[in-house]
Order: sequence, then structure tokens, then C-alpha cells
Amino acid sequence: MTSIPLPQGMEQNKISLLLGHPDPQTLLTPALRDTILRLMSSSQATSGLQYGPEQGTSELISFLVEKINREQGLLVRPENLMIVAGSTHAVDMIARLYAGAGSTMLVEGPTYADALHIFRDQQINLHSIPMDLDGLIPDELEKQVLRLREQGTSPGILYTIPNFHNPTGSTLTETRRREIIQLARRYNFLIVEDDVYRDLSFAGRLPASFYALAEGEGVLSICSFSKTLAPGLRLGWLLGSEEAIQRFVNCGTSQMGGGANPFASQIVATYCQSGAWNEHVSRVTALYKSRCDVALAALERWMPAGVSWTHPEGGFFIWVNLPQNIFARQVKQQAFEAGVQVAAGDGFFVNPADGQHNLRLAFSCASLEEIEAGIRILASVIADQ
Amino acid sequence: MTSIPLPQGMEQNKISLLLGHPDPQTLLTPALRDTILRLMSSSQATSGLQYGPEQGTSELISFLVEKINREQGLLVRPENLMIVAGSTHAVDMIARLYAGAGSTMLVEGPTYADALHIFRDQQINLHSIPMDLDGLIPDELEKQVLRLREQGTSPGILYTIPNFHNPTGSTLTETRRREIIQLARRYNFLIVEDDVYRDLSFAGRLPASFYALAEGEGVLSICSFSKTLAPGLRLGWLLGSEEAIQRFVNCGTSQMGGGANPFASQIVATYCQSGAWNEHVSRVTALYKSRCDVALAALERWMPAGVSWTHPEGGFFIWVNLPQNIFARQVKQQAFEAGVQVAAGDGFFVNPADGQHNLRLAFSCASLEEIEAGIRILASVIADQ
Repeated sequence: MTSIPLPQGMEQNKISLLLGHPDPQTLLTPALRDTILRLMSSSQATSGLQYGPEQGTSELISFLVEKINREQGLLVRPENLMIVAGSTHAVDMIARLYAGAGSTMLVEGPTYADALHIFRDQQINLHSIPMDLDGLIPDELEKQVLRLREQGTSPGILYTIPNFHNPTGSTLTETRRREIIQLARRYNFLIVEDDVYRDLSFAGRLPASFYALAEGEGVLSICSFSKTLAPGLRLGWLLGSEEAIQRFVNCGTSQMGGGANPFASQIVATYCQSGAWNEHVSRVTALYKSRCDVALAALERWMPAGVSWTHPEGGFFIWVNLPQNIFARQVKQQAFEAGVQVAAGDGFFVNPADGQHNLRLAFSCASLEEIEAGIRILASVIADQ
Repeated sequence: MTSIPLPQGMEQNKISLLLGHPDPQTLLTPALRDTILRLMSSSQATSGLQYGPEQGTSELISFLVEKINREQGLLVRPENLMIVAGSTHAVDMIARLYAGAGSTMLVEGPTYADALHIFRDQQINLHSIPMDLDGLIPDELEKQVLRLREQGTSPGILYTIPNFHNPTGSTLTETRRREIIQLARRYNFLIVEDDVYRDLSFAGRLPASFYALAEGEGVLSICSFSKTLAPGLRLGWLLGSEEAIQRFVNCGTSQMGGGANPFASQIVATYCQSGAWNEHVSRVTALYKSRCDVALAALERWMPAGVSWTHPEGGFFIWVNLPQNIFARQVKQQAFEAGVQVAAGDGFFVNPADGQHNLRLAFSCASLEEIEAGIRILASVIADQ
């Protein structure tokens, strides 16, 4: 291939479009630091150091309930919400309490690789539903359910990432969400909505959530502070019926654990109450939008014919479709050798072969210059296949 | 019953000998506060806010490896240790990855109630081994294993709390530990050593750990910062073979979670490296010893004939044996009405009826005056049965 020199100051193999991490430079803001310093200098800090309520720190629950009701026009109550130690904690509890070994779950093809890993650890049987640019396809979902029923199996859960999907970046249309809720009611499965990117909307708008459209019935909704504030705090929240939340609160891990991260929760509650989080989300969303814009422009400019990609309206990811004669694993390896890291598509599918012509590009953690150079190098690797 | 007035300043129902929590007044020490303030004012703080390595923050692993090797004369390597989000995280991972639905586990009778809850959630079949003042009885353990084998079942795990046991306060003798390791090898079960109280030894000595005696083979050892530093930080560690640690590190929840609480880990690593934790542990151990001494003296002074109790050499708990005609649930209720909260024994047993004549007293969270008054009131309730 033609060797493209890396921009000045960039070392070999140092352009990473690999991981869905927030930019490290956005993490320790003056407002977050001030909150921590103020809190630690007050006697209040003691309560965050003790075991907390199993449902989570009440100040943080109150803040989130108010936020959700304001933003989504809902009437959620504190009883509908549990603080979790990141979305991992929620996905794991749901897999254990609502699915379990031998159960059947529907997932998107592609979907979040680490969630697949948790479901596989729990020996859940996974079946994949195809997606297009508008997200999960309801007709395909119904076909899959009917096929499974013919085989004597009923899926208990649909796991979906409706907004700024990982890995595709696509957003499920509201019409489709309504259709999927109808299917969930007809065929009696629970919708698990992994909505950790919802606060990162570039245009500030989103279709109504599954939780809102279904009026909270038959939906569990997972959100997180990891993408918009700081993953190291390990905090998120889970929204569901009062009965479901009680079930999570009363399970063994919740009872033994003494609440999800009381220390971090107290800090985040204080920080959020000050209004700092809202401002921070606006700032990081603008940052990620500018990176996405540069990535899309670079794709347009450099990619050879036959390559297509998604146009995300939020989140961290762009999904690239390669021609059928070009293989993602090979592109990934050669791009790595040329100084650019990307994710190959296979890990995001129940059946890895379904992703052999796809790449995921994460634009969240690279500078504008790195994104431009990285995509130019990647395009050159693809052109040389 | 004779009404005993509560000491001045104590409100009704306000003497709690119920929960195994560290004293809240020991939590936010000047040294911990200073560590947090210093760390947050440095650029280092950013790394604790990002996703961390799945095995945990390396500085904390290094500190703990050095501590374990120094204290126990071992040659543990970083590959033998994983940082966990409190002992709950470790117990949950072990239950999922080494036991699972339909498997058979041996536990002590009595044992930690919340661990029973986690095992039950995982649909693990639980069998109880009797204890005496020296802890778990190896002969009874072998009898139970043989009985199960006759029924075609092999237990895969023994879950034990060898030091300052919850709920009994007893410590398993070293001779018995050696015998149990022999049994584990003969009958091929894993020993899970829940050792969260080990740093709270009143006399500063302990029998060698299962992990040390077995030279790390066939033992998983769980420790925690919750009892000696602060539960709200949600941090502990898990010691095992390199192969076991790899298995935990590579499971779905570890891969998705991005390391156990990177933010709290960074704070605790910095705090521990300063030497502050060692000093703190000495101080809190002396505090808990003084409370235990007062509790034992009060039991001696006030309890009616026929009541016996354990004499812990560390930890948080004393276990009370009531005569066969006195029922713990009734005593608990009447003590509550008289202003004192204690735990009834039934929740600590696989078969709750085994604990109907037992109480657990936690002395960790009450003042000397409250302990003295609480036990006096409790004794009076028992005398009135």
C-alpha cells in the first residue's frame, strides 16, 4: 500500500479509533474537582463511606427521577429507579434474574460485544435480529419469534440499544419502537433498553424511549454516567416497574452489597444537584459532534467506492460496511500495522461470520487531526485489498 | 419484665447491636480526607475516572501483594490477585463461575446470611456443616461429604469464614484448617475462604490462612476494605491461582465493567501507600477490642444461668446460645420493644430452625455505654421468658 505519513507528533500505532471510552481530557473538570473537595471538607462525607441503602443513594435517585420526568414528560417515582454500579451491574442482574441458564434471548445483530459475553457466561441461548439504517427490523423480529415458537421456544427478553447504537451508531425510529412494543405484548417478552448513549444526542432530540412509549410496562431501561461523566465512578441507573425494582433490590447481591457505590453516588449527587452535569453534557456532546463531523467528512473524502457507513446523530460510533470481497480482520491487522486501531465487526455478532465485512470506528477518544489521518490511512488500507 | 431505663441521652430503640458495620465515626479520618484532597488536586486523578484494567488498579494490587507476602510469608505474585468491588463481587463471581445452578456447596452452620442469599439466587444446593467453639468440625464435614456421595452428589465448594466468623465470632484452629485441606484434596472440593475480618485481630495473631497452608492450591481467599476502612468505597480483593484469577478477569462482567471501582481504587492505593491504613487498622482494632471486652463483661454480669456465648478474638460479633426453651425471635422482638436491636439466629442457617435458640450481637457500632446497657436489657428480656 501507499505509505501515508502520520501527522507530526503522532507516533506509530497511536491513532486509536478502537474503544468506546469518553475522552480522558473531559473527565476531571473543575466543577467535579470542586464538588469532591467541598464534600470531603464537610461532615456529610461520612455517609458516603458507610454501607448505603440497597436501592442506592436517595439524593441521586431524586435527582434522576426529576431529570427523567422533566425530559421525557413521565411520572416516574423513586420506586421505579435503582442506582447501579454501571450498566454492567444492570445487565448482569437482568441476565441472572430475568433470563438465566437455558433461557432464550433476542439481541440485535450486531450488538454490544461485552453484553454478549455476559449473556454467554449465563448460558443464555442467543438469537440475532437483523438491523438496517433505522435500527432493529420489527418484521425480522416477528419472523424470528415465530421460528423459535415453531421450535417450541419462547424468547423471554429482547436486548436492544435504541439510541446511537453500539456498534452501528444508528437510532431506532419511533414507529419501529411502537411496533416492537406491540410484538413484545403479543409474544410476551420483556424489552431491555440499553440506553447509555441517550444523553449524547448531537441535535438534542431523540425518539421517545421504549420505557416512555410502553408507559413503563414490560420495559427495563438502563442508563449510565460512564459515557457523559466518568466511567471510573462506576455509576448508572435502572428504570423499571416498582415490582421489578423491588426484585433487584431484594436479590442477594444487592442485599450483601449495601448499595451501588455509595461514595461515588454521594459525589455525583452533589455534583448533579449543582447543575454542573447538564452543562458538562452540553460541552462533551458538542465535542463528540465535531469529531463525528470530521470522521464523516474524512470517510466521504477518502473511502473507495463500494464502502458505506452510518451517519450517527449521537454517541461514539460509526459502522463501516466493506464490500463482500474485503475482510475486516485483514483490514484491522493492516491498519494496525499502518498505525491505526479499529474494531473488526465479528465480535459484535452472535454468529461472528455475520460481521466479517464490517468495522466499528470510535471517534470519542481521538483528536480531529487523528480522526482525519486515521480514516485516511484506513481508506488506503481498504483500497489496497 | 422489669423495665430498665436507658442511659441518659439514649432514645428508645436506639441501641443497635444488629448490624456488622464499622463505626461511622472511624470512616472519614484526616488521613483519608487528606489523601482525597491531595489526589484531586493533582493531574493523576484523571486515570481513576476512566475505565481501568479488568484485574484492578495496578498500584493497589502491588500494595496488597507486598502486604500479603510480608504478613503471611508467602510468595504471592500480582497474577494471583484481583481487585473486587467488595466481597459481594467476589462471592457472586465464585458462585457464578465455580458453582452455578444445580451444583452442591457446603457452608458452615451458621454462616453469613447474605452469602446464603446469593447462593440461593444462583440455585445452588446448600448443605450445612456443624460448628463448635473452634469453628467448623472436620469430622462432620467428612460425614456430610460421604452422605452426599452416597446420594450421588459431589460438593464442589466449601464456603467458610475462618477468622472471627460471622455470626459466631469464632476462629477455626490451624489443626482443623490442615485437616480440612486434606479433605478438600481427598474429595476434590474448592475451599472458598471469606476472610474479611482477618485484619481485625485483637491480639494481632491468627492461624495461618487456608491459602497459605494449601500453598495457594485449591483455595480462593476473599478480603475487604469494608471492615477496616470504609464500606462505601466498595473495595476488596480476591486471591487465587493464576488460572483462577484469569478466569475471573476474563468473564463477561469483568470485561464489560472495566475494573472494580477505579476511582475508589486509586484513592485507596494512594492512602495505603502512605502507611495510613496500617495505623488506622491498629486504632480501630483497639476500639473494637474495648467494645468486645465490655460486651463480654456485661454478658458475664447480667446473663441468666443457661445462656452461653462465644469469646471472639477479633471482628465484630458475639454469638449467644439460649436455653432450648427460649426462642430467639421472641427475644429479638421483646428486646426491640425495650430499646435494643439484635439479630435472631435463624437467618444464618440453611435450615432456619437450627438457629431458633441463638442471637448475634454486633459490638462494632455501639458505644461502651450502649453495649453495657443493651446487654443488660437483653439479659432482662431473656430472664423474663
